[in-house]
Amino acid sequence: MTLHETLETAIRTIPDYPKPGIMFRDITTLLGDASAFRRSVDELVHPYAGTKIEKIAGVEARGFILGGAMSHQLSAGFVPIRKKGKLPHDTVRIAYSLEYGVDEMEMHRDAVKPGDKVILVDDLIATGGTAEGAVKLLQQMGADVVAACFVIDLPDLGGRAKIEALGVPVRTLIEFEGD
Amino acid sequence: MTLHETLETAIRTIPDYPKPGIMFRDITTLLGDASAFRRSVDELVHPYAGTKIEKIAGVEARGFILGGAMSHQLSAGFVPIRKKGKLPHDTVRIAYSLEYGVDEMEMHRDAVKPGDKVILVDDLIATGGTAEGAVKLLQQMGADVVAACFVIDLPDLGGRAKIEALGVPVRTLIEFEGD
Repeated sequence: MTLHETLETAIRTIPDYPKPGIMFRDITTLLGDASAFRRSVDELVHPYAGTKIEKIAGVEARGFILGGAMSHQLSAGFVPIRKKGKLPHDTVRIAYSLEYGVDEMEMHRDAVKPGDKVILVDDLIATGGTAEGAVKLLQQMGADVVAACFVIDLPDLGGRAKIEALGVPVRTLIEFEGD
Repeated sequence: MTLHETLETAIRTIPDYPKPGIMFRDITTLLGDASAFRRSVDELVHPYAGTKIEKIAGVEARGFILGGAMSHQLSAGFVPIRKKGKLPHDTVRIAYSLEYGVDEMEMHRDAVKPGDKVILVDDLIATGGTAEGAVKLLQQMGADVVAACFVIDLPDLGGRAKIEALGVPVRTLIEFEGD
């Protein structure tokens, strides 16, 4: 099976979740499939195998699972980007747009150094509000965000353009249309 | 440096967090240190290198980071154990004890099959209430929980005995006394 076929099979679609009309793409079935998980992580990291990447930044919570694996594989450190109030030390914070309203995310102030090459990861990019906030937070601290990686892209929602507008290439493994 | 020395250096202690009198052991500095993170994951998985492990179960949220790396390294699937209401499909749920009061955690009903060899992971074991709940949830679904792994043990709080009482060996990398 190609990776694309594997992902199509391994990702579960849950209709009308969390509300009517939404087709929720559930990545937990992919994570639970040892081969699909391994192939996804390997595909996400392989362009960077020869590059020095200082940090993988993962967005809470599913980005932590992929990001932990990518950090270990690339011998990079891991940086958690969390909802406000969950990190114990001195943080930097940014507001970001959700489908309805805004929220705030945080990162430890000492988590990246100016010039660090950083890859951002999350499971899915939809409108791109969360990823845009995370990239801006990393860039504010001087990081060189070399890529933003996602397993799933929902291209109809336009997230990719928001990230590319910040000068950051976007890598995704599979697209689902019509959400 | 020995792994123990590396961990002692890499884990940050934050006094009086989240409240006066608590010495909070902050693992984010360890995660951010590529070498310390890599060595920790390698040490956690090495006893299982020759064993078929079907799943790594990680406890939200820091257990996701370690568990993602361990899953990839052992070619196992990953199972998220989350606070209630966060998983999109049919779940099983268990109440567990916190320092004050109780909460509930969930796992997808189809996340493990009877007989699956599973390793539980979280960053730290203190009173063991969370880990005990997670092990019971896995065992209820028929999983063979072959180990519970933590980077940090706070032995004064007695968590290890709770897990061992369920027939599950506990592996930890460093102890901090006097919390």
